[in-house]
Amino acid sequence: MPKQVDIVAQKQAIADAAIQVIGETGLDATRLRDVAAAAGVTTGAVTHYFDGKDEVLIAALEELVRRILDPDVWRRPPGLSLKDALIALCGELLPLDDETRGEWRVWLAFWSRAIHTPRLAEIHRGYYVRITDALSETLMTHGGLEPARANLIADAIVAAVDGVGVRATVEPDQWPAARQRQTLAALITPLLPNAQS
Amino acid sequence: MPKQVDIVAQKQAIADAAIQVIGETGLDATRLRDVAAAAGVTTGAVTHYFDGKDEVLIAALEELVRRILDPDVWRRPPGLSLKDALIALCGELLPLDDETRGEWRVWLAFWSRAIHTPRLAEIHRGYYVRITDALSETLMTHGGLEPARANLIADAIVAAVDGVGVRATVEPDQWPAARQRQTLAALITPLLPNAQS
Repeated sequence: MPKQVDIVAQKQAIADAAIQVIGETGLDATRLRDVAAAAGVTTGAVTHYFDGKDEVLIAALEELVRRILDPDVWRRPPGLSLKDALIALCGELLPLDDETRGEWRVWLAFWSRAIHTPRLAEIHRGYYVRITDALSETLMTHGGLEPARANLIADAIVAAVDGVGVRATVEPDQWPAARQRQTLAALITPLLPNAQS
Repeated sequence: MPKQVDIVAQKQAIADAAIQVIGETGLDATRLRDVAAAAGVTTGAVTHYFDGKDEVLIAALEELVRRILDPDVWRRPPGLSLKDALIALCGELLPLDDETRGEWRVWLAFWSRAIHTPRLAEIHRGYYVRITDALSETLMTHGGLEPARANLIADAIVAAVDGVGVRATVEPDQWPAARQRQTLAALITPLLPNAQS
């Protein structure tokens, strides 16, 4: 029987591989054996941990959310205002390179499937609550915003990132990093408090 | 042989039916015979006009873009400022009711397919150029913006609508019309010129 540490490492490898394969070939064309091959494990290992394609997709999403909410991502560099730090942080979430474009393709695949799959929609809702809560908390604690205003601005920031990210994912050639960052900054800069703490 | 007018009417009925069926059941589960049944035509009529599922999807998208660019939608009500008119217009594009939620589900299905289908991605790009050009033109002509600024604001407005629309489509229960309109207004109000003409 594999040790606990091996199980965790194997599940992590499968989630990473799922992001890669779904991003490259699309969810429809993704086969569990391709995920297994990319993870360097047997197909049996994938089916042992995950009960079908939806479960693998959920594992991939869970890993994407973990990357977004990584405390290192949210740690404000010294000397940067909250406003500049949030613009930089949100910019990093955009599909600026091959790796992040692959991650966005996983999100889009998840959305179109979640619409018709209540269980996936519920999981999606949970992820977005965690992301908007993290933003809202930052806006209250470090930006001095009242809760209602912080929630509205958090919703708006998430919508801005999603809107730019969707367009850039579907039209990568038309949306180089500069156009993405400029459009995002135009949307969120007026919403962010200047206060520092 | 049917008259020209019948052909146009039949194609329109099939496009409308495609929006309805794709919106209700998702693209994967959509069968051409369901589209035919919803349009009140034979499956043969659908396959006669459209060469497979992608073509039906494109016809559905073409109809959605026609609805968005309908001159009636863009006609500013007398007495309304450009700013208020654009906020109202963009608000109407959101998934506020069952019909528009169905339309948004078609957009999301198109996106996730276009990512891996260059021909669909090219068609998508064309639609977005038409929509952002219409916005940009309005911002220059009636808002007095310079071309570069008008293009940036048009990109930002489209991203705001997409970002709010995606979230509300995936989480309809959490996103009543008021929350959608409020989030959209927070994003685009600071970007719109106050000038009137």
